[in-house]
Amino acid sequence: MVYLMCKKLSICMIGFGNAGRAFCKMLLGQQAKIKNAYDYEVIVNTISTRSKGTLYDPEGVDIGRALREIEDFGRFSEDNPQLIQISSQEAIKNSKAQVLIELSTLSIKDGQPAISHIEAAIENAMHVITANKGPIAWDYKRLKGLADEKGLSLLYETVVLDGAPVFNMVRDNLPGCEVLAFKGIVNSTTNFIMEEMESGSDFDTALKEAQIRGFAESDPSLDIDGWDAVGKTAALINVIMDGSVTPMDIERTGISHITAQDLKDAKAKGGKIKLLCEGYREGNSIKGKVYPGFVSNNDIFSNVDSTTSMLSITTDLMGEICIVERNPEIEQTAYGVFSDMLTLVKRLVKNK
Amino acid sequence: MVYLMCKKLSICMIGFGNAGRAFCKMLLGQQAKIKNAYDYEVIVNTISTRSKGTLYDPEGVDIGRALREIEDFGRFSEDNPQLIQISSQEAIKNSKAQVLIELSTLSIKDGQPAISHIEAAIENAMHVITANKGPIAWDYKRLKGLADEKGLSLLYETVVLDGAPVFNMVRDNLPGCEVLAFKGIVNSTTNFIMEEMESGSDFDTALKEAQIRGFAESDPSLDIDGWDAVGKTAALINVIMDGSVTPMDIERTGISHITAQDLKDAKAKGGKIKLLCEGYREGNSIKGKVYPGFVSNNDIFSNVDSTTSMLSITTDLMGEICIVERNPEIEQTAYGVFSDMLTLVKRLVKNK
Repeated sequence: MVYLMCKKLSICMIGFGNAGRAFCKMLLGQQAKIKNAYDYEVIVNTISTRSKGTLYDPEGVDIGRALREIEDFGRFSEDNPQLIQISSQEAIKNSKAQVLIELSTLSIKDGQPAISHIEAAIENAMHVITANKGPIAWDYKRLKGLADEKGLSLLYETVVLDGAPVFNMVRDNLPGCEVLAFKGIVNSTTNFIMEEMESGSDFDTALKEAQIRGFAESDPSLDIDGWDAVGKTAALINVIMDGSVTPMDIERTGISHITAQDLKDAKAKGGKIKLLCEGYREGNSIKGKVYPGFVSNNDIFSNVDSTTSMLSITTDLMGEICIVERNPEIEQTAYGVFSDMLTLVKRLVKNK
Repeated sequence: MVYLMCKKLSICMIGFGNAGRAFCKMLLGQQAKIKNAYDYEVIVNTISTRSKGTLYDPEGVDIGRALREIEDFGRFSEDNPQLIQISSQEAIKNSKAQVLIELSTLSIKDGQPAISHIEAAIENAMHVITANKGPIAWDYKRLKGLADEKGLSLLYETVVLDGAPVFNMVRDNLPGCEVLAFKGIVNSTTNFIMEEMESGSDFDTALKEAQIRGFAESDPSLDIDGWDAVGKTAALINVIMDGSVTPMDIERTGISHITAQDLKDAKAKGGKIKLLCEGYREGNSIKGKVYPGFVSNNDIFSNVDSTTSMLSITTDLMGEICIVERNPEIEQTAYGVFSDMLTLVKRLVKNK
């Protein structure tokens, strides 16, 4: 009998909602390829949730079973031998995993509990991947500092435009460039609602449709009042413009006051209304704002429809470039986490 | 007196047209920053041209003077003490530089003389940066193999969408993804001409305007007959789809048969005609085509206007993402070369 030894990468997941489950499905499909390419076996040894229970097995949770249980019962089964009773904070410490994947429910108003999950992970010498914008919007510089001190990675590509490269692109592929400003359409729900209203639907019906299709936040005010876009704007300012802001520093106007008549007026003027976000320099400070703005039909932003998102980045040396995530599904959120995981594996391979 | 020693990176430039001169201006402006960030002093020790003369100085050509001479006389002055008489092939060998920057006039019909310049550089243990699409469209796999054998870098970000990250983004920031297909608007001249014709201008006036503004190829058929787009399509297939094609394998239809009436008809149908390029899989083979196609006004491609370019990439795991280079000038071509140079400096710093 021949044993082929390969390295293990163990993951502790906090949160097992749509994105977490889609990540696990992607991981199942790609595990063999990763082993082949990098000689790493990736296992999930902990899945901790707020309301569905917590699974733990140092040899690896049975992901297939976990996915089936959620599908069948909406929570992990009492019969599951990997089920344990433990808080998320304890689960992180208990996991002794190498990586925390933070996918807990967002509180954009203070970035918690995600921030304390990340602190706990770093204390326990774990690398961190977060799909949660809260920590990057509220506390990026400090958390990055904590990770750097211990030689750990803090990765967060999913925070804006899911797995479409935004943060990684600016860091890796625009060397020598300074980001002077950015402008984007980064919230699908508001984009979708205003489009539906333009086509004659009313606000509530459009919102319900976005919720059924799964891209609206469970608390609609997070989308409608601009909080989601504000969180992303703050995260972008903190990372790609080297700023130090929180969501409270971003000027915020939502879309709840926008009427069908406003959209008709915009159409008559040859355009649309879109919820835009911007980051820009003003003197020595960096400002951010989120607002419903007029976009001409001739502008490339005008065809950023439905769940499509776009971010335009203006730099000193490379002028203006845009990145578009076109018609994403939940798999594209999962890929953001997955790509951060591969980035981490590649770093580990290099440093070994 | 204190001497601060820092490492030198010496460059041999072949070609000193608009892009080469813009690169040199950018380098002059950024030299101090590079020294500061990476402890490397970048010097150009050779500028070899076909018709303007050749400059050489092992301690570094006086770039400021070279730029002024071209501006004043259209060629290097006979009084310039750095002027030498030498062919481009000899200049590469003679330079003993660490990097070749290949910016010679393109022959898209065979990729020469750029390919033999690159071969000469690799033989002389030089890293290669090419802004010339010929070598990547005609001979990528072989040249990459030659460079790899000697542990040298072959960089070519500028070939598609100037300095907007395309090749680097796919390589670095879409880990685990396979590119299934791509579609793009990658030739500014044809895009500009059809737009001008749509607004009532005739073909020849529009072409002249593109030539005056400096983005048309000197031989108009390279743009009009689709050769430029074909070269970029072949380069994309070879690199991001791991194919092995030459420009001759790409199905090619130019825009010379497009009439004002065709554009009017497209407008009446709610769209425009754009010169599109595509790469896609068909069974086990990878195909490419360049053709003027109808684009609906609701499609994000429809607002890719004037000199703006866009490339959409469809992947297995990340769905569809697009990268847009908006309203570039010659500085954005120069930045492509500059960013490759910084990529190389970063690699050298890591490996030292």
